[in-house]
Amino acid sequence: MNSPSDSSSPIVWIAGVGASAGLGAALARRFAQGGFAVALTGRTAARIEALASEIRAAGGTAHALPGDVSDETSIASLAARIREIGTLRAAIFNAGNAVRAPALELTADQLEQALRTNAIGGFLFGQAALRAMFENGRDAAAPDGRGTLLFTGATAALRGRPPFAAFAAAKAALRSLAQSFAREFGREGIHVAHIVIDGGIDGERLRQAAPQRVQQMGDDGLLQADAIAETYWQLHVQHRSAWTQEIDLRPFKEPF
Amino acid sequence: MNSPSDSSSPIVWIAGVGASAGLGAALARRFAQGGFAVALTGRTAARIEALASEIRAAGGTAHALPGDVSDETSIASLAARIREIGTLRAAIFNAGNAVRAPALELTADQLEQALRTNAIGGFLFGQAALRAMFENGRDAAAPDGRGTLLFTGATAALRGRPPFAAFAAAKAALRSLAQSFAREFGREGIHVAHIVIDGGIDGERLRQAAPQRVQQMGDDGLLQADAIAETYWQLHVQHRSAWTQEIDLRPFKEPF
Amino acid sequence: MNSPSDSSSPIVWIAGVGASAGLGAALARRFAQGGFAVALTGRTAARIEALASEIRAAGGTAHALPGDVSDETSIASLAARIREIGTLRAAIFNAGNAVRAPALELTADQLEQALRTNAIGGFLFGQAALRAMFENGRDAAAPDGRGTLLFTGATAALRGRPPFAAFAAAKAALRSLAQSFAREFGREGIHVAHIVIDGGIDGERLRQAAPQRVQQMGDDGLLQADAIAETYWQLHVQHRSAWTQEIDLRPFKEPF
Amino acid sequence: MNSPSDSSSPIVWIAGVGASAGLGAALARRFAQGGFAVALTGRTAARIEALASEIRAAGGTAHALPGDVSDETSIASLAARIREIGTLRAAIFNAGNAVRAPALELTADQLEQALRTNAIGGFLFGQAALRAMFENGRDAAAPDGRGTLLFTGATAALRGRPPFAAFAAAKAALRSLAQSFAREFGREGIHVAHIVIDGGIDGERLRQAAPQRVQQMGDDGLLQADAIAETYWQLHVQHRSAWTQEIDLRPFKEPF
Repeated sequence: MNSPSDSSSPIVWIAGVGASAGLGAALARRFAQGGFAVALTGRTAARIEALASEIRAAGGTAHALPGDVSDETSIASLAARIREIGTLRAAIFNAGNAVRAPALELTADQLEQALRTNAIGGFLFGQAALRAMFENGRDAAAPDGRGTLLFTGATAALRGRPPFAAFAAAKAALRSLAQSFAREFGREGIHVAHIVIDGGIDGERLRQAAPQRVQQMGDDGLLQADAIAETYWQLHVQHRSAWTQEIDLRPFKEPF
Repeated sequence: MNSPSDSSSPIVWIAGVGASAGLGAALARRFAQGGFAVALTGRTAARIEALASEIRAAGGTAHALPGDVSDETSIASLAARIREIGTLRAAIFNAGNAVRAPALELTADQLEQALRTNAIGGFLFGQAALRAMFENGRDAAAPDGRGTLLFTGATAALRGRPPFAAFAAAKAALRSLAQSFAREFGREGIHVAHIVIDGGIDGERLRQAAPQRVQQMGDDGLLQADAIAETYWQLHVQHRSAWTQEIDLRPFKEPF
Repeated sequence: MNSPSDSSSPIVWIAGVGASAGLGAALARRFAQGGFAVALTGRTAARIEALASEIRAAGGTAHALPGDVSDETSIASLAARIREIGTLRAAIFNAGNAVRAPALELTADQLEQALRTNAIGGFLFGQAALRAMFENGRDAAAPDGRGTLLFTGATAALRGRPPFAAFAAAKAALRSLAQSFAREFGREGIHVAHIVIDGGIDGERLRQAAPQRVQQMGDDGLLQADAIAETYWQLHVQHRSAWTQEIDLRPFKEPF
Repeated sequence: MNSPSDSSSPIVWIAGVGASAGLGAALARRFAQGGFAVALTGRTAARIEALASEIRAAGGTAHALPGDVSDETSIASLAARIREIGTLRAAIFNAGNAVRAPALELTADQLEQALRTNAIGGFLFGQAALRAMFENGRDAAAPDGRGTLLFTGATAALRGRPPFAAFAAAKAALRSLAQSFAREFGREGIHVAHIVIDGGIDGERLRQAAPQRVQQMGDDGLLQADAIAETYWQLHVQHRSAWTQEIDLRPFKEPF
């Protein structure tokens, strides 16, 4: 019928989908609105399912693909599912986690975990998405290229600082991987970009973890997930003659 | 009537408007399409007038304001005109010029001229635009803030390199000014961003100066002015909870 | 006797000591010449022993501590040995390895290995060195502080680029860790610096792997290990009122 | 006799020499101690003369060359004097001034003055020094190259921030010029480096302008001029196989 997306719809694959009031969910809604079928990956199946239902109820197409993109076995089966579903045109790595500890208390396991979740996960996801895009048979000469691969980054990627030594190192590694991907696959028509989120996102995570901070920041003092998602969408639709590889996003009142 | 812009339309002021096939003209068209009255500034009155006519013929509102934004007297009278016309909501500094010389042949006059055209011009224009925006009486609490101030930059801003010592220094100074403006006026609701153009723009200037290079770059190997302009527009409409201060733009096949 | 270093000598601990014609060895010689007892760590016991003997033969004090600093058990026993030997005043992380592969051929294991060798290794080594320095009882108010912690980095740390996606990501993570350490422990009197080596080092590794490149680069076209080591030494002796956190080093003819 | 410097001594030319308790003076003392004849340039003849006398009294060779390096006529006559005196081997641009103003109060004249003092001055001085070094007939194949050209920079060069919009823009331009010089003349044997001073210098200027701040910073909370000068000297003596182009310097307790 008049669904904005059907079996022939291009697919966006979003990793790191969690709370309904979070960036992953906002990205899913924005790309669904843009006519994409959304494939949702995250660790908690119930949340993925709930969001998929919501998107379908709004007339969109959504696939719940619970799993862990930092695990090689899991990513392989997720990638196989993506291929069955249809034509991957956009992929967004939005997973990751921040550990907070003074450097002398940080354990090697915590650092390793941070690197796995943020950097190795980003690499495995990016690699799987790239392979799927190259198999699409879509021409790199399309005005917007063959596909889009976006990475959610953080200011910490640019600046190691206590007590975020592990998180910053992992995000720095992820940013570096995004640059390598961009330089290797740009001329193949893959648009790779790294988005530097500078500030807290107004979502479930922060509202639970730091309600006071949310209040202190005041109106629009935190990044609205929908506003971020709009910029990701605009990156996707950029013409291949003028692609962005890095962009920062912060609330208007954020010092930087 | 149903004109997209009338006397109550917000105004965008664009400095550095030249050839019809150039970035300044593309920016004017994009903002006119977005419902803005466009105020066009450039050194060659005939070109400004021609573009203004074109925009009016397409149903838009345009004001030709020839002048030199790097000259204090000129900027003062231009700013006075802007105030008469209406409510300044966006301002784009797109002026500047590149001088090419080995460092030992470069004269102090050439360096001074590069600094004047790019950096002092950007400062005077930004200051005039900021003052006009603050006088608007528009609330900083608007979702997209009180106003937008965009600066066209270049990769040279990030990297001094022969034979562009003067141009790079001037663009580095301009980028620094954009950062100072952004940090000082962000919380006042002014969105300041610096756009790093990395590559040649497919326009009259390059087609005349280096026709061979244009051919070598092939399809979409140069930045399309319309594609750049679209990104400027998207920066303007960003929600104030998620503003960009710096973004790069380059053709998909540009090495970087 | 009049040995430049005896049991009361301060200790420098160098990780990543390999070939006699390599940076690790050059660092050992330079610090020995500066009156330090050198504690040498590397994976190949024979090479460590040979260098220790050479330094002793030249009148210095050297301890061979073979081991793998990226392994938690190994680092724990190495750190215990350091404490027995004496007072740790300087520590240099010079380990690491570069893997070269197109991004779609790179395996998660290779990336993980790169992160372990370069970043987790650097973290474990840095943490062990910091703990030893804090236990020294040395006053942070000494003109040159309580101790020095240096990390050998690479241009890749600043710039992800194929076919070095894994190496660059790992070096970016290491650089970030160095920054976090510097920001957390500077005011405690620990001088942390990251040295960006930009270019090939004229040593055994490169002479074997790429003899043609060595020849092409010509006189001083590769970094001399002794010249690098001199800069590390000068970083160590900097006064705490004017410490360096990042420095680049490249041959005079290296494009950058 | 066995004076550390005589008529055949290499010359260092230092611009921006002012108070005896300042960086320019400390640089002069350090290079004199290294066997250099020092040529001192600054705007206040009396200060230059006093320092020259002090250096001569200590057994060194010093030439007082009062003048303004940001003025073309002045720089021409200064450069002529340098050629008469002897063989220029090192040149240090240490001039510059910081203006402090909110962006809407800053005048174009103030910005222009900042650009002239810091950036145009640095360019003119660098160009004059480079020409003199190329005329020396000294071989680029000397281990430390043909000559050294150092620029005193500031953190502001990396980051525009109110109320230092003019100063930051000017220092950003100077840094860019230093990079262009480095890239153009490195392979000709000229070592160009930019030193990022991050923090206040403990000298006459700050002690007069902000005595309270000096006290608050405590022991070694401000950069000691002698400590900075030592690093400049070490940059000069670096082997051409491992040259530094950028280095930061800050007190151990400075947040960054």
